[in-house]
Amino acid sequence: MNNKIKVKFPDGSEKEFDKGITALDIARQISNRLADEALVAKINGEVRDLAAKLDDDSELKLLTFDDPDGQHTYWHSTSHLMAHAIQSIYPEAKFGVGPAIENGFYYDVDIDVKLSEEDLPKIEQRMLEIAKQGNPFKRAELSKHEAYEFFKKKGDPYKQEIITELDEKKDVISIYEEGGFTDLCTGPHIPDTSKIKFVKLLSVSGSYWRGDEKNKQLQRIYGISFPKKKMLDDYLTLLEEAKKRDHRKLGKELELFLISPKIGIGLPIWLPKGTVLRDTLEKFLREEQLKRGYLPVVTPHIGNIELYKTSGHYPYYKESQFPTLKLEDGHEEYLLKPMNCPHHFQIYASKPRSYRDLPIRIAEFGTVYRYEKSGELNGLTRVRSFAVDDSHIFVRQDQLKDEVCNVIELIQVVFSVMGFKDFTTQLSFRDENVEKYGGEIELWEKAQQEIREAADLMKLNYIVAEGEAAFYGPKIDFMVKDALGRKWQLGTVQIDYVMPERFNLEYTGSDGQKHRPVVIHRAPFGSLERFIGVLIEHYAGYFPTWLAPVQAVVIPVSQNFFDYAENVHKLLLESNIRSELDLRSEKVGYKIRDWETQKVPYMLIVGEKEKETGTVSVRQHKAGDKGNILLKDFISKINLEIVNKVNHN
Amino acid sequence: MNNKIKVKFPDGSEKEFDKGITALDIARQISNRLADEALVAKINGEVRDLAAKLDDDSELKLLTFDDPDGQHTYWHSTSHLMAHAIQSIYPEAKFGVGPAIENGFYYDVDIDVKLSEEDLPKIEQRMLEIAKQGNPFKRAELSKHEAYEFFKKKGDPYKQEIITELDEKKDVISIYEEGGFTDLCTGPHIPDTSKIKFVKLLSVSGSYWRGDEKNKQLQRIYGISFPKKKMLDDYLTLLEEAKKRDHRKLGKELELFLISPKIGIGLPIWLPKGTVLRDTLEKFLREEQLKRGYLPVVTPHIGNIELYKTSGHYPYYKESQFPTLKLEDGHEEYLLKPMNCPHHFQIYASKPRSYRDLPIRIAEFGTVYRYEKSGELNGLTRVRSFAVDDSHIFVRQDQLKDEVCNVIELIQVVFSVMGFKDFTTQLSFRDENVEKYGGEIELWEKAQQEIREAADLMKLNYIVAEGEAAFYGPKIDFMVKDALGRKWQLGTVQIDYVMPERFNLEYTGSDGQKHRPVVIHRAPFGSLERFIGVLIEHYAGYFPTWLAPVQAVVIPVSQNFFDYAENVHKLLLESNIRSELDLRSEKVGYKIRDWETQKVPYMLIVGEKEKETGTVSVRQHKAGDKGNILLKDFISKINLEIVNKVNHN
Repeated sequence: MNNKIKVKFPDGSEKEFDKGITALDIARQISNRLADEALVAKINGEVRDLAAKLDDDSELKLLTFDDPDGQHTYWHSTSHLMAHAIQSIYPEAKFGVGPAIENGFYYDVDIDVKLSEEDLPKIEQRMLEIAKQGNPFKRAELSKHEAYEFFKKKGDPYKQEIITELDEKKDVISIYEEGGFTDLCTGPHIPDTSKIKFVKLLSVSGSYWRGDEKNKQLQRIYGISFPKKKMLDDYLTLLEEAKKRDHRKLGKELELFLISPKIGIGLPIWLPKGTVLRDTLEKFLREEQLKRGYLPVVTPHIGNIELYKTSGHYPYYKESQFPTLKLEDGHEEYLLKPMNCPHHFQIYASKPRSYRDLPIRIAEFGTVYRYEKSGELNGLTRVRSFAVDDSHIFVRQDQLKDEVCNVIELIQVVFSVMGFKDFTTQLSFRDENVEKYGGEIELWEKAQQEIREAADLMKLNYIVAEGEAAFYGPKIDFMVKDALGRKWQLGTVQIDYVMPERFNLEYTGSDGQKHRPVVIHRAPFGSLERFIGVLIEHYAGYFPTWLAPVQAVVIPVSQNFFDYAENVHKLLLESNIRSELDLRSEKVGYKIRDWETQKVPYMLIVGEKEKETGTVSVRQHKAGDKGNILLKDFISKINLEIVNKVNHN
Repeated sequence: MNNKIKVKFPDGSEKEFDKGITALDIARQISNRLADEALVAKINGEVRDLAAKLDDDSELKLLTFDDPDGQHTYWHSTSHLMAHAIQSIYPEAKFGVGPAIENGFYYDVDIDVKLSEEDLPKIEQRMLEIAKQGNPFKRAELSKHEAYEFFKKKGDPYKQEIITELDEKKDVISIYEEGGFTDLCTGPHIPDTSKIKFVKLLSVSGSYWRGDEKNKQLQRIYGISFPKKKMLDDYLTLLEEAKKRDHRKLGKELELFLISPKIGIGLPIWLPKGTVLRDTLEKFLREEQLKRGYLPVVTPHIGNIELYKTSGHYPYYKESQFPTLKLEDGHEEYLLKPMNCPHHFQIYASKPRSYRDLPIRIAEFGTVYRYEKSGELNGLTRVRSFAVDDSHIFVRQDQLKDEVCNVIELIQVVFSVMGFKDFTTQLSFRDENVEKYGGEIELWEKAQQEIREAADLMKLNYIVAEGEAAFYGPKIDFMVKDALGRKWQLGTVQIDYVMPERFNLEYTGSDGQKHRPVVIHRAPFGSLERFIGVLIEHYAGYFPTWLAPVQAVVIPVSQNFFDYAENVHKLLLESNIRSELDLRSEKVGYKIRDWETQKVPYMLIVGEKEKETGTVSVRQHKAGDKGNILLKDFISKINLEIVNKVNHN
């Protein structure tokens, strides 16, 4: 009988240990520092407690706070710690759920006092006191009945409810305890509370139990924690900066868009300045698409319900759609279009197509309507109406790779112009073991191979996610990082083998036979609304000159120079520069400060000297005073900046 | 006792006649020719039979076929004649109604045989035979009871139904008889059937009695008639030409738009070539508007039902709207927007406005949705979704006249660019004696005065129509004549005193007090769909080069010149000319004929000589061969034509 096991590490090295050794012990054998920093262990691909024992040959990775899984566990453990602290302050507290989230964690609690932000430091304080006790997180396993009785005794009706509704087959339930506080939890957790050094509770808000308005409203407390002070400080600075850049706030200050409950929540209205932004972006993409052979079309915003029954989107996505429009005669029923595809398919099908005609690239900035719950709406990033920079490209299978390259190239141009230097790509492929996918397996395999080749060819920085494909085909998703390093999912490219079948789309091949085209759905912006929301935050409202709603403002130093200022303004307009003229009877200093808040790229101050010499004194946003230059030179300079879409960020 | 009366003629002259003289006798005294050509008389503004007696001093105008009222009566009398002929062929025939219409007349008849176009010449023939008899149209007046009994005896149940439903107070009912055929009719009529010389019955179709699907379907026969053969010939030629220009036919042949029942009837889908047309028109107007200080916005296609309750459009225009979208929670109800105004009002109201900010010109190419009955839909001219080139201009009362002038000037530019040389304007004012209008009378008076001054200033060819104003203010409607002389109502300008009140719109005046702005609703195109429908017929699909979806096509004479043709095509595209390249393996003659049917302005034929000399052989649509010119000269020439929007029609 062999009492040794072999453990393989991420660097490929292997080492023998006694059977039954814990991950923590292995960490200690490697180095004290690693033992100190390790939070959890990935054993054969599964994230587990450091106390977990290794009984067989295994692959092992020790995870610190640098690893996303390490972070996630850290925050999850902190949410237990917060619940512990709350219970010690409010002994009657009952607990809902308390997960880790993308940044930090929350816990939903049921206590009689209404908490405000002022109550949070007290809880934070108590958390740090408990953390210092260094209580180990201890896992135990109970039968379902035992667990139910435990939480009944503890007085946690929400936990009881969760246990009752667990899968019947599951009869072993895990709980975690630290310092006397026990929670229902699948784990894993960090070794002990002393790892939690710096905590910030961020906000408290109402939250219905299980998101259902019919249930009791609990209080949800959000927080975050870090092992180092600098990490917390950096995060709080980022939060502060993000608040300043909040597109809802800037959208209002810069008069870009409006959401009026009188018209409807989640339905953005583009004000004149926001419309300039929107039209400029649309024009830019429209021109890039024209160069690449796209064919713009315009289709109505409603469609017969049968279209969506054919596509399979109705009634399966009914929850996220507006109700249908049923005409009184009962024969006609329409849906506000939740996507543009079925309309574009009708255009493709409106005449016979030959193999020589493909690829056909139908494009539309088509506004679609989806029903989102009012609680989920958020500025421009979560809305009920949005314009997709949509295109459906109909190709032969043998054209797929080239066309995917073309699409990737366009998306690269778009991101580069916007200054998104850092973006990553996910190739979402089928899961070999699952059978939910449509279309022939051979075509999928070939398409995935070609997507991968296209991604390599286009030098994409990509990861492959097996099992993340849509049911109708593999896809490519693009994630950009904004100026604050936050990630946003924007563009998408999807290959579709199913819809051409459902809509009976055909072309005549060189063999004279009918064939099905493959459809590529693609949208570099994704949604124009969401894209602009992200841009506002990315640029902090300080748009590059080519996008800025107002590109220059002319400010005379006194009434004596109104005529010259008017001339300058007129010349700018004639040179297609979006200029404004400020003839208010205010001091120049006041005007400058005022236009600074409007983040206008250029202010042109004009007085005696400028009038005499045909010049303007240029003040550039952020860069400050740029001196006195000839008006015609300024016009050349700004026009060059606009034509080249210079990105100053 | 004076037996003489004084009669005043249109030229202002007056003459005495014996009391009781008929209009026809007066015509005879003036000239035999007039007596021969006169059809009806306008006596003190009322159109009456020539047999009508003049018992008092009167104004008299004798109307011939040149006068619209003369024509209308002529066609009305012809419809009686047709009924007479039908009865003599189908004695069991029962008659519905038979009015004159804009061009000709129709009669709804109930006979057991189903008529086809082949049956019409027989009826025409019979009509001409009866016409030659020169039967006088004789008027008689009966009591309601007598009339009912008369048509009961004749066996005309539809006429009986009409009599039964006549206003109770009306007890004298007129009938007209000619040659033994009697019809229920208020008249007037022409003197006798011999005036009807040339008749053409045009079509027969089903028509439910009183337009109600629940009633019996009658057969509606359309026809037209003229006193001179040339008039009929000209009209039939016009009909033939109109058929060729039918925008539904051309829309399909030129691949401009599509109406797919799968998406929905009345919902036009713009195909790539139609989208070029649409985008080019939109771009043109957008640029003209930018120069004039308009501010583009974008608003959603639905709006909370409360907006339309405030405006008064719901539930009063419910019949012409799609059903509402009622969310399941019952709190929110939306309407597909039937107009853009309430959305634009919310934009105006989104911030405080000062007297210095006005005028504010909010503009949007906003797609609106109206419910038209399926039977009323027609190509692009009667649809359920259409984009209005909408603007709402918010002005102070003292800015109204100037702004109306600005709007008229823009509409004049639009019409002139399109080549609508001949357009008329109607100033629709309030009826002094009716009280349905909103707003203060003094403001109306002032506005009407200013509209008239603006119309004079802008040298409009206008008529004033009292009582034709909208309930919220006076308006100006523009009617264009197309290339076939047909009239279309396009642009509109409406002054609105009521909506600013209902939506509580305000600005702060120079006096520091709140005031209401006046709103001008205006749309030079009216509806983009309808406008393009009219343009297609106006140009017969042969669009001026700046609008043409394909501006030039390059045709190599053989495969040897494919490379040169490709170069030419590439250079055209780089010069922003919408070029196509025809590399099909067809004969040049075939290709030329094919592109002729596509009505492409320029074909560039290239072969040996062209390749050697860097030229193209230009073939212009309709104009034919324009000889061999240097490619760069052709590019300059076509670009000049595009920039100047040259109208060749």
